[in-house]
Amino acid sequence: MRALRLEADWQPRPAAGEMAPEDVAARLARRGNDVWRNPRIRPAEVPDPTPGPDDVVIRVRACGICGSDLHFVETDADGYMLYPGMVRTPVVTGHEFAGVVEAVGSAVRDFAPGDLVCAEEIAWCGSCLACRSGRPNNCTRIEELGFSFDGAHAEWVVTRARYCWSLAPLADAGIPADRIFQLGALVEPTGVAYIAIFVSAGGFMPGSTVGVVGAGPIGLASIALARAAGAGRIVAFEVAEGRRALASAMGADVVLDPSTWPADGLADAALGQSRRRGIDLWVEASGAPGVAGTMAASVAPAGRIVLIGRGPHMIDLDPEHLIVRGAAMHGSIGHSGSGAFGHVIELMAAGRLDMTRLVTATVDLDGAAGLLDGTPRRQAGKVIVAP
Amino acid sequence: MRALRLEADWQPRPAAGEMAPEDVAARLARRGNDVWRNPRIRPAEVPDPTPGPDDVVIRVRACGICGSDLHFVETDADGYMLYPGMVRTPVVTGHEFAGVVEAVGSAVRDFAPGDLVCAEEIAWCGSCLACRSGRPNNCTRIEELGFSFDGAHAEWVVTRARYCWSLAPLADAGIPADRIFQLGALVEPTGVAYIAIFVSAGGFMPGSTVGVVGAGPIGLASIALARAAGAGRIVAFEVAEGRRALASAMGADVVLDPSTWPADGLADAALGQSRRRGIDLWVEASGAPGVAGTMAASVAPAGRIVLIGRGPHMIDLDPEHLIVRGAAMHGSIGHSGSGAFGHVIELMAAGRLDMTRLVTATVDLDGAAGLLDGTPRRQAGKVIVAP
Repeated sequence: MRALRLEADWQPRPAAGEMAPEDVAARLARRGNDVWRNPRIRPAEVPDPTPGPDDVVIRVRACGICGSDLHFVETDADGYMLYPGMVRTPVVTGHEFAGVVEAVGSAVRDFAPGDLVCAEEIAWCGSCLACRSGRPNNCTRIEELGFSFDGAHAEWVVTRARYCWSLAPLADAGIPADRIFQLGALVEPTGVAYIAIFVSAGGFMPGSTVGVVGAGPIGLASIALARAAGAGRIVAFEVAEGRRALASAMGADVVLDPSTWPADGLADAALGQSRRRGIDLWVEASGAPGVAGTMAASVAPAGRIVLIGRGPHMIDLDPEHLIVRGAAMHGSIGHSGSGAFGHVIELMAAGRLDMTRLVTATVDLDGAAGLLDGTPRRQAGKVIVAP
Repeated sequence: MRALRLEADWQPRPAAGEMAPEDVAARLARRGNDVWRNPRIRPAEVPDPTPGPDDVVIRVRACGICGSDLHFVETDADGYMLYPGMVRTPVVTGHEFAGVVEAVGSAVRDFAPGDLVCAEEIAWCGSCLACRSGRPNNCTRIEELGFSFDGAHAEWVVTRARYCWSLAPLADAGIPADRIFQLGALVEPTGVAYIAIFVSAGGFMPGSTVGVVGAGPIGLASIALARAAGAGRIVAFEVAEGRRALASAMGADVVLDPSTWPADGLADAALGQSRRRGIDLWVEASGAPGVAGTMAASVAPAGRIVLIGRGPHMIDLDPEHLIVRGAAMHGSIGHSGSGAFGHVIELMAAGRLDMTRLVTATVDLDGAAGLLDGTPRRQAGKVIVAP
């Protein structure tokens, strides 16, 4: 079958430290940026998938391009991939997808050929302490579709049935098929925002003031979810003009450009937008330096900050901000568990979460390869690949 | 009546900024260290209290000396008091107390003469947004007994009935009177730890590994509460030998001295004490620099850090520690609300929380004045004043 394949040269940096022999044997880098040089993504002919007993074979109908896909092929001055996380090569990319079940393994009980599905990117093991404790996003034996095993920038993708979610609620709501697949491909990034807001940070009271910094797909999903869950006022901060327009479209009441502000400008603006009370729930979806500390300076009493965006920066945090307000700063990662995918799908079916507003282009595999040529790109919204 | 009275000279620093005219008129400094010079605490004859309709007059039988009482009379190089928080002068000190109700105002329904009581230090207004939202510790019109109005280093103290808590459960449990008053005087600092662990941080699952840094009265109360609430293993860290002995007595399984460790020694020790899993609940009760960031490096997946200790230091926090673990850092202040005082009293009555182990000495008012002479002192445990 046809697929987009990431290849790179295994050239661990001297400073990378020792790697487990099984990782070396599997060509699995725990930190891609330490190991992979001269990365490239090209259309390739790869073997057709052969499902195991727990597996589902899905004909891919839509698969997003994620920032991490771009970072696979962007390189630093030494030619190493920018992506810092776990990645094996060669690997078929693509992890935000939806499609139609084509075949199921002998042990699969919950899906049948013809079902419309999407799937979690995180292949949690189900048996480590974190998984047994109900925290699949912290699985200590995590595998990742499109990173450590073949993904969905391809005609077909195989994953275990327990990671798949039915898109039947969208069909039952009368949504046309093409739109179902676009929505289905957007469940994964929306799930990241859902877990952060409603699981990691414990949610917010309807009527709350929600602040979102960074209006990439995760920030935009945060805005849409906050709107759907009854936020009183949503204030978004984003430096890129195209993304500011999307932030408004997703439901932000006010969208501000902090690019020329002084260090404390974000806190000042947040207080100004909340009758000086502060932000009840702050969502950090930019990974930019200085943001989290400033959020703490403008969080409401008993408010919450949730960190999703990642970057190399330390937070300079004044503990008094958290102490005198009885406030908290939560970290969040992943999209699995807590029924997040199912809840996102139900919100979409109910017409409360139109994530397709993010979609700025649809391309085929060759078109996607053209976008994944290593040229630094920042899309305003989301490009969908229809293989 | 006889009392200990804090006096000082109103000499705002040039850098202190503008103060509200009503604060100036009331001799109320929002930040004591900015305003009060040449502080002194002396025994004094003050007018007998006259209760208003909502007030209770309490004959004080025991009142602790808190670190803030010591900081009232310790001074910096310019002669300003070290205490950084809100304080009026002249004021009768003392805010950790218990005694016997001697008289009640006409509108008081819940107490009668002869009742054994303790009381909250925080005089929450009951009508600001924070109070109306169930967060009295964030009251925006807060007054503080022993800080902004007369406290309990005195023969009698007056406070509103709604801040008082009955000590009848201790008497019903057959505890002798002298011990009841000591326990009652220790409810306030124990309540600070209770709110931090069980309200601000949301508690912990029985069997959890709890880490406590700093074994002053709040840290010691945290250890005792963690033990009472079913912690699996409690690891305490304290530089002072006398406090380490108390930490063991309060129920810590392991007590370590971090005074000679490198910066990451705390994290290494915490991982070593938790089978490399990390600490489920970290209690920061030292206010020392570098601690909170190190806690984040050794918190368990989905773990919690709660900050109680205060100091002038910023936290250098790596957000990855919170993000990859789905962990959180909470701030906490105060002891009011959530029935904390009542729950602490019930634990004491049940014999699950013997806070009297902290008591290292009992003195009268003159003896207390001798301890509050401005000489820097750090008690291992708690000195109780019996007026």
